[in-house]
Amino acid sequence: GVLGSGDFARSLAVRLVCSGFKVVVGSRNPKRKANLFPAAAEVTFQAEAVKKADVIFVAIFREHYSTLCDLADVLVGKILVDVSNNTEINHHKESNAEYLASLFPACTVVKGFNVVSAWTLQSGARDGNKQVLICSNNQEAKRTVAEIAQVMGFTPVDMGCMSSASEIENIPLRLLPAWKIPIFLALGLFLCFFTYNLIRQVIHPYIREGKNKLYKIPIEVVNTTLPCVSYVMLSLVYLPGVLAACSQLYYGTKYRRFPDWLDQWLQHRKQIGLLSFFCAALHAVYSLCLPMRRSHRYLLIETAVKQAVEKKMTIWVEEEVWRMEIYISVGIIALGLLSLLAITSLPSIANSLNWREFSFIQ
Amino acid sequence: GVLGSGDFARSLAVRLVCSGFKVVVGSRNPKRKANLFPAAAEVTFQAEAVKKADVIFVAIFREHYSTLCDLADVLVGKILVDVSNNTEINHHKESNAEYLASLFPACTVVKGFNVVSAWTLQSGARDGNKQVLICSNNQEAKRTVAEIAQVMGFTPVDMGCMSSASEIENIPLRLLPAWKIPIFLALGLFLCFFTYNLIRQVIHPYIREGKNKLYKIPIEVVNTTLPCVSYVMLSLVYLPGVLAACSQLYYGTKYRRFPDWLDQWLQHRKQIGLLSFFCAALHAVYSLCLPMRRSHRYLLIETAVKQAVEKKMTIWVEEEVWRMEIYISVGIIALGLLSLLAITSLPSIANSLNWREFSFIQ
Amino acid sequence: GVLGSGDFARSLAVRLVCSGFKVVVGSRNPKRKANLFPAAAEVTFQAEAVKKADVIFVAIFREHYSTLCDLADVLVGKILVDVSNNTEINHHKESNAEYLASLFPACTVVKGFNVVSAWTLQSGARDGNKQVLICSNNQEAKRTVAEIAQVMGFTPVDMGCMSSASEIENIPLRLLPAWKIPIFLALGLFLCFFTYNLIRQVIHPYIREGKNKLYKIPIEVVNTTLPCVSYVMLSLVYLPGVLAACSQLYYGTKYRRFPDWLDQWLQHRKQIGLLSFFCAALHAVYSLCLPMRRSHRYLLIETAVKQAVEKKMTIWVEEEVWRMEIYISVGIIALGLLSLLAITSLPSIANSLNWREFSFIQ
Repeated sequence: GVLGSGDFARSLAVRLVCSGFKVVVGSRNPKRKANLFPAAAEVTFQAEAVKKADVIFVAIFREHYSTLCDLADVLVGKILVDVSNNTEINHHKESNAEYLASLFPACTVVKGFNVVSAWTLQSGARDGNKQVLICSNNQEAKRTVAEIAQVMGFTPVDMGCMSSASEIENIPLRLLPAWKIPIFLALGLFLCFFTYNLIRQVIHPYIREGKNKLYKIPIEVVNTTLPCVSYVMLSLVYLPGVLAACSQLYYGTKYRRFPDWLDQWLQHRKQIGLLSFFCAALHAVYSLCLPMRRSHRYLLIETAVKQAVEKKMTIWVEEEVWRMEIYISVGIIALGLLSLLAITSLPSIANSLNWREFSFIQ
Repeated sequence: GVLGSGDFARSLAVRLVCSGFKVVVGSRNPKRKANLFPAAAEVTFQAEAVKKADVIFVAIFREHYSTLCDLADVLVGKILVDVSNNTEINHHKESNAEYLASLFPACTVVKGFNVVSAWTLQSGARDGNKQVLICSNNQEAKRTVAEIAQVMGFTPVDMGCMSSASEIENIPLRLLPAWKIPIFLALGLFLCFFTYNLIRQVIHPYIREGKNKLYKIPIEVVNTTLPCVSYVMLSLVYLPGVLAACSQLYYGTKYRRFPDWLDQWLQHRKQIGLLSFFCAALHAVYSLCLPMRRSHRYLLIETAVKQAVEKKMTIWVEEEVWRMEIYISVGIIALGLLSLLAITSLPSIANSLNWREFSFIQ
Repeated sequence: GVLGSGDFARSLAVRLVCSGFKVVVGSRNPKRKANLFPAAAEVTFQAEAVKKADVIFVAIFREHYSTLCDLADVLVGKILVDVSNNTEINHHKESNAEYLASLFPACTVVKGFNVVSAWTLQSGARDGNKQVLICSNNQEAKRTVAEIAQVMGFTPVDMGCMSSASEIENIPLRLLPAWKIPIFLALGLFLCFFTYNLIRQVIHPYIREGKNKLYKIPIEVVNTTLPCVSYVMLSLVYLPGVLAACSQLYYGTKYRRFPDWLDQWLQHRKQIGLLSFFCAALHAVYSLCLPMRRSHRYLLIETAVKQAVEKKMTIWVEEEVWRMEIYISVGIIALGLLSLLAITSLPSIANSLNWREFSFIQ
């Protein structure tokens, strides 16, 4: 059974019908709404629908839950699936599902399907996340809803008891929260270093010597900026650990909570580290592209022509040769090690390592 | 207990014995078959074996299920594990497990282990997929079989009730179905563009000017072909979304099903996108290799010598320099963004994103 | 309830209090220990604590389990969670959890939380592995503990019945066991080939012709060594399969166990293959860096100057050109194919492939 006639209710009915379930839709105005639902779904009055169904998806807003109170008698013993989402994180004190459970103590409430979009429901789980997070205090009801999700093509995930409901309701509102600060940090650092390098490599030679080096902006200036950003970010990964150790030594205990800013910083280390790796990898690709450029070719030929005209047979500078060989060599090894760290941060790899292995690699 | 004496039955017995279970094998001709099984397994007549065992693996072909009907009395109350596979997808109307359950209504039938190969059973789960998909209408029986799978070194996955059996039976027959069309598409596009570039870069200069440019075939011609394929594939990822939106606007509803070809196309977008990324990455590697080639070295030296002999000191062309700098710069950024998309398509990453984050990244 | 006052017990109490649980700690000397625990946790005598709690975490060493025997009466019917670890793999004949269960037959024992570090408990599950492996013979108790783990921010994983306990206890002691042999093998091969190439490319020219080629060590010598290591490792991936097939043909049976060394070898193939891919990828990056070096630039200019002075206009050698074009072309294709293999070895990808697809790709 489905209560409601919004976008989600309709998509849910479409998917349930496609998955071979018998669907009955409860509406306040079944005649007007019937044409919105697939033909195979029976659209009738709410009380009728509830009587015919064992599992009822409550696809209406939290604000209208109280309008269902008239149905309290027919709802007794039914499984209610709360599929609602909020518009803000932790909007209400108690989760929607717990509120629904408090309104209908004689029903079994299951939280689920709110992490799925109406579009995914309609078109079937194709790519992206196929998980449906489910929680309830009743094992039997949870299993029933999990099996419905399975048949609909989703992967049910048991999230334990009802107290997880507010966590599940917050999930669809999240937009990469752990990435926001690290990304703005990286952008800020990039801008600073880019300005410095622009002045040093382009504007200064232009003002002092009148040389037009503007062609350096898209590649060379960016390429000297990226490793600076990468280095600073990498140091920001290891700094909070040192600060935390100092704080523990200072207070003489491991069990005192860190100040909030340090705690936040410790939590963002993984993201800062991955951005550091991303900058390092871009730096590698930019550096590899240097000899492909026309400007590199022209400068090389001009030097050769100049040498040939002056009949200088050798230009070998041992020190410059060694500097470059060692620079490249150390760069490749550093990138190789950072790649290993990046690979172990993939969830499926991290889950196959115990903490001894994880800290060994780190 | 194991019924059957084929390859799978023998491998199953080997693994069960190695995992510390007491195994009894039921055969029609126990004397002749005994030497096929490990010494620790007891080989006896079918009725004997069934009596001694609580969980019975039915490792015989669907066609011979009816021969077990003589054992119906002794099978009452036992757990039968259907490990069979079909030779074609959806070969029979009802799944093997459901057919077995209909023959023995007094038994509890569990579907499982069919996704594991005889080789994996024999040698233990080493690499590749360690999951054993299990479904049954009886929770208790499902749990028992899941625990056996756990002890054998596999990861049991609960696939819900018996209606999933036909899905589970189809899995081992699958051979990358979602990749077939995209791969043939990519190969077709590659052939077309390769022929065009071969004519343009090699055959045409040979016929018109008699120049031998055959050395360009392995790298330069391939390298101008790859980005063309990548671009067309990338446009084919975004085109069906536009067509779907147009179709919705035209019909004025979101709830009408798309025509089959569009639906198929929408489902293959992820694979087409990944192939597009693969071509783009290959193009990047090919381009980076260009300055490593002997031909590049020879052309460079020849130009330098020509310039030196003619005493031309400068060959700098500002426009050419800028074109290359911008081309490389945009290429790197595009590749960086495509890499992010490719990384989020990894199952373990996709499962940690909600649909808001997923569509934001897309 | 928490029994014990060590590092783990204190961290556990911190996390339980933070997750909103009511915690009572049992200690032999509650007055002296009270200040070690968070203020919200009640610290009392062991018997008191056990009476007040339904779920009791036993955070004491296996050696002291017997000291709890005085509490046997009050422990009746409680859930005991064994969180202990050993100092050596398979240290005792029976696992700690099974030993605890044998001491208190009237309690329900659940194994769990031992794979989590005290640090992770204290600071909350941030990165790395968030899984808590749980096993027990009692479904109800296992579910209760799983829900506690869920609320604490971990991902409970059902590992079946009590016989898995020793496996779970061995996990935190593991340190990449499958990687040890392959890594030492790769290092050994690298040293051999590096010495050979060092003698051939640097020492021999120095002794015979007095040429100082020391600058070749960091990049050129390493770069000729890496593909040798990669090739030998790749052949070691495919060799044991051939040997296994020969052994089966020789003995005329598939069901005979392989000798131990062959079995070990077969089990390390994945790791050897990944190291082979790592060497091949490093070789690719080193090769791409070759034209970036000063030494490459100097040699190029010197050749050009020499040619210009001698007025030789052409240095094109068709054979050398073709050799390099084909070498690079084949190298890129080989690296592309190896990348596909490496990607399918990611756990989340491998779990989405059936064995037919997996062996097709291999």
